[in-house]
Amino acid sequence: MPSIVVKIDSTSLATPEKIEQIADSLIEQKNAGNQIVAVVPALETLEDRLLPYSQILSDNPSDRELHALNALNSQVAISLLAISLEKKGAKAKSLNGWQAGIEVTESNQNVLIDGIQHEYILEHLNNDEIVVVAGSQGINRNRDILSMGEGGTETTAVAIGAAIDAEQVEILTVRDGIYTADSAVVNQARKLKQITYDELLELANLGSYSIHPRAVELAKIVEMPLLVRSSTGNQEGTLIKGEIDMEKNLIVRGVAYEADIIRLTVGYDSYEQSSLSDIFTTLAEHKIDVDIIVQAVIDGVKPTVSFSIAKEDFAEALKVLEKNKPVLGFSFADFEVGLAKVSIVGAGMVSNPGVAARMFDRLCKEKILVKMVSTSEIKVSVVVPQDEMVRAANVLHDEFNLEEALV
Amino acid sequence: MPSIVVKIDSTSLATPEKIEQIADSLIEQKNAGNQIVAVVPALETLEDRLLPYSQILSDNPSDRELHALNALNSQVAISLLAISLEKKGAKAKSLNGWQAGIEVTESNQNVLIDGIQHEYILEHLNNDEIVVVAGSQGINRNRDILSMGEGGTETTAVAIGAAIDAEQVEILTVRDGIYTADSAVVNQARKLKQITYDELLELANLGSYSIHPRAVELAKIVEMPLLVRSSTGNQEGTLIKGEIDMEKNLIVRGVAYEADIIRLTVGYDSYEQSSLSDIFTTLAEHKIDVDIIVQAVIDGVKPTVSFSIAKEDFAEALKVLEKNKPVLGFSFADFEVGLAKVSIVGAGMVSNPGVAARMFDRLCKEKILVKMVSTSEIKVSVVVPQDEMVRAANVLHDEFNLEEALV
Repeated sequence: MPSIVVKIDSTSLATPEKIEQIADSLIEQKNAGNQIVAVVPALETLEDRLLPYSQILSDNPSDRELHALNALNSQVAISLLAISLEKKGAKAKSLNGWQAGIEVTESNQNVLIDGIQHEYILEHLNNDEIVVVAGSQGINRNRDILSMGEGGTETTAVAIGAAIDAEQVEILTVRDGIYTADSAVVNQARKLKQITYDELLELANLGSYSIHPRAVELAKIVEMPLLVRSSTGNQEGTLIKGEIDMEKNLIVRGVAYEADIIRLTVGYDSYEQSSLSDIFTTLAEHKIDVDIIVQAVIDGVKPTVSFSIAKEDFAEALKVLEKNKPVLGFSFADFEVGLAKVSIVGAGMVSNPGVAARMFDRLCKEKILVKMVSTSEIKVSVVVPQDEMVRAANVLHDEFNLEEALV
Repeated sequence: MPSIVVKIDSTSLATPEKIEQIADSLIEQKNAGNQIVAVVPALETLEDRLLPYSQILSDNPSDRELHALNALNSQVAISLLAISLEKKGAKAKSLNGWQAGIEVTESNQNVLIDGIQHEYILEHLNNDEIVVVAGSQGINRNRDILSMGEGGTETTAVAIGAAIDAEQVEILTVRDGIYTADSAVVNQARKLKQITYDELLELANLGSYSIHPRAVELAKIVEMPLLVRSSTGNQEGTLIKGEIDMEKNLIVRGVAYEADIIRLTVGYDSYEQSSLSDIFTTLAEHKIDVDIIVQAVIDGVKPTVSFSIAKEDFAEALKVLEKNKPVLGFSFADFEVGLAKVSIVGAGMVSNPGVAARMFDRLCKEKILVKMVSTSEIKVSVVVPQDEMVRAANVLHDEFNLEEALV
């Protein structure tokens, strides 16, 4: 019997009525002839109650105990969903991370899945039960409970899918799939039938979609098809896999944008003084994320380097640069606020060298000033004035005929 | 280094301030040169929130999921206590039932401790950590989480004490020890320095003390000394062990009472028709607890049997007798309400045959009517009119000089 892993979204657990709806939908999938593993995120209502309590006791509780407390949130959710499934006549079993055999390790404060002893899950599946697993948690070799942080529930779902050789992993969201752009900003945005892991990774990294990149990366490695769909399951979702059937030869497959970008420019008196490695190492040490980097030369001899950062890192970045000016050796620093990033993404760009030129050309025709450019094999990003962001997204959506994407 | 197991009471976890107080007291015990295992009950504030939620989803949730949900309550408590201990500079680790190696089995809907893989607890103790264990939970061979129900936390504490060869198990209560009687009713009630397991068992079964009989029974079997004391630890508690040093030759060591007793009497026309086994088997099948049983003969040929039951079982008992009258073969059933049970308990009674007589004599002098009598090796119980209960408890406390018990 084929097995499907379904990653439940937290919206679907927000009220008893929603839990009952999601139980109905899982039972329907089971009755259609599938083995079902549901992977469940934390119940947010409870999270609000536990953390403040621990904060009264200590302003700096240990990671181990916070991990253990965090893990409880999804342990509540799995039992409630299992109870609802049973009430509706299905056989169901809730499993905590350790009961599902999820082994994790800690590396640089990140909790990573080490392996899954999947015989426990299989045992229950073969007993005709819907298995409800607490996502985003596992145990390490010391039997400590660790919580995985952002993206953990999706990553758990993909890892379980790989371990039990599932047909596909379904990711439930409030949206019903992956769109060519945010429909709140681009009227012509269309839902994609298919998208590649790489395309989704670019879009996810651009903040456009709620699927965490680590889950997509894992799916790519294990070649697990992901189906992003709404929790009601009434509409067709978007299938994510390695190679897709091109829809009407769409080279560009999505437009994404990000507001509140700041461009910092640092100038040096000579090449000898400039060290890109020094400046970006220093910024990284202060956990300031640098996105686009552009190096330029003024007057033939005075090099400058510009880079974009998010608005919330601005004050800290200025402080760090000021403090380290003697060491870093730059002669001036400048900044520009009120910028935004607009990106086009598409796996087909690799074999279509003219895509970036077509993008610049259209933006030029629309008199939208391009301040910075960054390209990867399947993405081109430009930094533009923020008040032109929405228009830029729309004209690019139009330029690459994304409104023709199949719904 | 000697190790001590401390069973925390739920009152000590009711607020963050109380958690901090109990953390201070555990650290003090550790600094005095002991290895400390704290066994923690459920956090009651959370319990109120989880159960109603599950009841919305199903009026009959499965035992497995309810066990799992119940177990979460003490898992919150262990992390909070560990966080508070760490904040105060102690090394501490919280352990769920399965992390502490607590193995349980289910038998007739009771969850019993099967064994403790105590190497996990020892490892942490030897690492100089205060170990905080979630009481009243463990896992079975299927890795299902089971919650132990009433008395489970104390029983877990005693079982851990036995497994790690602890010096003693301390049971924290809101009272500061075991008293000769309830001081709310008997003014002269005194705290006992020591009491035997058997004496405490009788008192516990009489509902007088909050230590659950199953914990005392286990302590008796494994010969684990129990110290019942207040959570503040300022006053000396009561030590419970197998053999005690007699205090001033007190034969009787406690007076207990229980209100709302009802006496049912069933009469038969002849011996041939009467079957004690039939009637009490029938009542047991309907989960009606029968306490004192007295058989009498009227007119030389018509046997009757009287027995006491609790008020809340009365309606059900009448229904069961009525329904099964043809099979049980009795000719009449009668009842008396408004009764109470008063008991004296003392291990010294075994070798002092006159104790019961002295009890009856004093009650007779006080003109307190004795309706039923029941004796065991270390206990005599009488059923008296409920409005005489308090006076009976006081005169018996006086008769056996319990006011002389050492404080």
